[in-house]
Amino acid sequence: MTGAVLLDYAAVAVFALTGALAASRSQLDIVGFIFIASLTAVGGGTVRDVILDRVPLWVGDPVLLLVAGVAAVLVFLTAHRLESRYRALEWLDAAALAIAVPAGVGVALAEGMGWPVVLVMGMITGCMGGLMRDVVCNEVPLVLKQGELYVTCAFAGALVAVVLGAAGMGGWVALTACAAVVFVLRAGSLALGWRLPVYHSRPPRAPKR
Amino acid sequence: MTGAVLLDYAAVAVFALTGALAASRSQLDIVGFIFIASLTAVGGGTVRDVILDRVPLWVGDPVLLLVAGVAAVLVFLTAHRLESRYRALEWLDAAALAIAVPAGVGVALAEGMGWPVVLVMGMITGCMGGLMRDVVCNEVPLVLKQGELYVTCAFAGALVAVVLGAAGMGGWVALTACAAVVFVLRAGSLALGWRLPVYHSRPPRAPKR
Amino acid sequence: MTGAVLLDYAAVAVFALTGALAASRSQLDIVGFIFIASLTAVGGGTVRDVILDRVPLWVGDPVLLLVAGVAAVLVFLTAHRLESRYRALEWLDAAALAIAVPAGVGVALAEGMGWPVVLVMGMITGCMGGLMRDVVCNEVPLVLKQGELYVTCAFAGALVAVVLGAAGMGGWVALTACAAVVFVLRAGSLALGWRLPVYHSRPPRAPKR
Repeated sequence: MTGAVLLDYAAVAVFALTGALAASRSQLDIVGFIFIASLTAVGGGTVRDVILDRVPLWVGDPVLLLVAGVAAVLVFLTAHRLESRYRALEWLDAAALAIAVPAGVGVALAEGMGWPVVLVMGMITGCMGGLMRDVVCNEVPLVLKQGELYVTCAFAGALVAVVLGAAGMGGWVALTACAAVVFVLRAGSLALGWRLPVYHSRPPRAPKR
Repeated sequence: MTGAVLLDYAAVAVFALTGALAASRSQLDIVGFIFIASLTAVGGGTVRDVILDRVPLWVGDPVLLLVAGVAAVLVFLTAHRLESRYRALEWLDAAALAIAVPAGVGVALAEGMGWPVVLVMGMITGCMGGLMRDVVCNEVPLVLKQGELYVTCAFAGALVAVVLGAAGMGGWVALTACAAVVFVLRAGSLALGWRLPVYHSRPPRAPKR
Repeated sequence: MTGAVLLDYAAVAVFALTGALAASRSQLDIVGFIFIASLTAVGGGTVRDVILDRVPLWVGDPVLLLVAGVAAVLVFLTAHRLESRYRALEWLDAAALAIAVPAGVGVALAEGMGWPVVLVMGMITGCMGGLMRDVVCNEVPLVLKQGELYVTCAFAGALVAVVLGAAGMGGWVALTACAAVVFVLRAGSLALGWRLPVYHSRPPRAPKR
């Protein structure tokens, strides 16, 4: 089992928790929890694997589905104790993003892809599962939340891994740095309001009335 | 032609009718009817086949597309005679679900998959086409309707097929039982209000104020 | 490089512009622009390639991603000068559709597919990228805009290419005619209101009250 596969396991568990929290916000039953948790957990990795023509991890190793199911049941039984399930969802999603991006980067590197594809696979693995969760549950996609860093975190983390790899520091060093960059940027955005300038329909220097 | 393939044909026809009904609710033109009908009809099976690295059925056998197109035209010409197109959509969707779940189960078994993947493929084949239809047409996804059994029916049906298969009663017996379980559960939910307990944001035993 | 591949390049550039315009309407930051532009640009072709079991073009040739990124930056810097970004989005989308449909048709023909699959691949390549853009950005999908021709244009164009090909006029003649038919129909719908009769929930001959 390579490092990237271990990361896939961890990302599945944490993304499944976020999916179950989204299901709780939609007031679904227990099977609905498991469905959304599984979709979120394996969605991004499945898109990555289908594009790279690999067999998705969970097809070969169904224990991953069990992990997602257990996470869904845990949330079903305990989520009402949370003060804010949306806040919990955001922070768990940040953790999952920080695990899934290096997982995607690692798989793409192991497949011998060039650096632009490595970047994209990191972003796909990190963002697609959560995007599916939000589209299906009718939440505003976290990807699109104005004034927050999200795709940017995935992009920056994947870029760091690519640069470190090119500098000869591949393997765990690069993937750990990638995870750290993703989480710190996302946490800074959630807790401290870090952001990039957003597009405004009217430029500040030419305000109409 | 194996049994699972026959079921795919039937699922295509009935799902296409539901897609065309959704198109009628969005007041599309005839080509829009055909587009949504085809997306709904082959969506779930295509996701399953792409994940299992098979050629989607309709690529090898375009008669399926013709079936979906004919269903769309039929609905375009006759849907205004229905008392409630939404009610018709729900019941046809129930029938399609009861056909598509065993179709997915049969294909996964024929590919030699283990039981967890068989379960998931039954659920994907049953639910994904309708989910795409609802997301594209801006309907509330049937998958998410509160207080109704939907994914649960697919899950229970697939489980019955897996258990019967493990007990040595594979083939048509298992697939027929699967279809029956799916339809009876879904019909019970639609007509009699059968449901599982849903998650509430505040637990009954600790109501605030 | 075959003709269909050249068309893929052009479609990527123009679809990326439409994706960036949609991002500007959602007031995203620059990385959000690049994300939505890339999704729109390669979405349709990727779905086509995954179904046909080909490696998506951008995996083998990442210059396409650079093209999408440059288009996103251009729009980020200049879109505020547009009088109506939605109008610009509609017309650029019409141009992209007119390029992407023949690209899809060309690839399907090169893969030796039969004509029904060629039709569908033209429609998928043309419509799916824009559909993903609209679903992710919470716009009303152009595919569904009532009283406008959209899927119909893609269908008609692909049909013309198939008929010309069957008549012995394959290659650039068929693809150029396909592009022209798509663009003229779509432009006629946008500028002159061309349309097909849409489905009404109550038939004109039996108005209630």
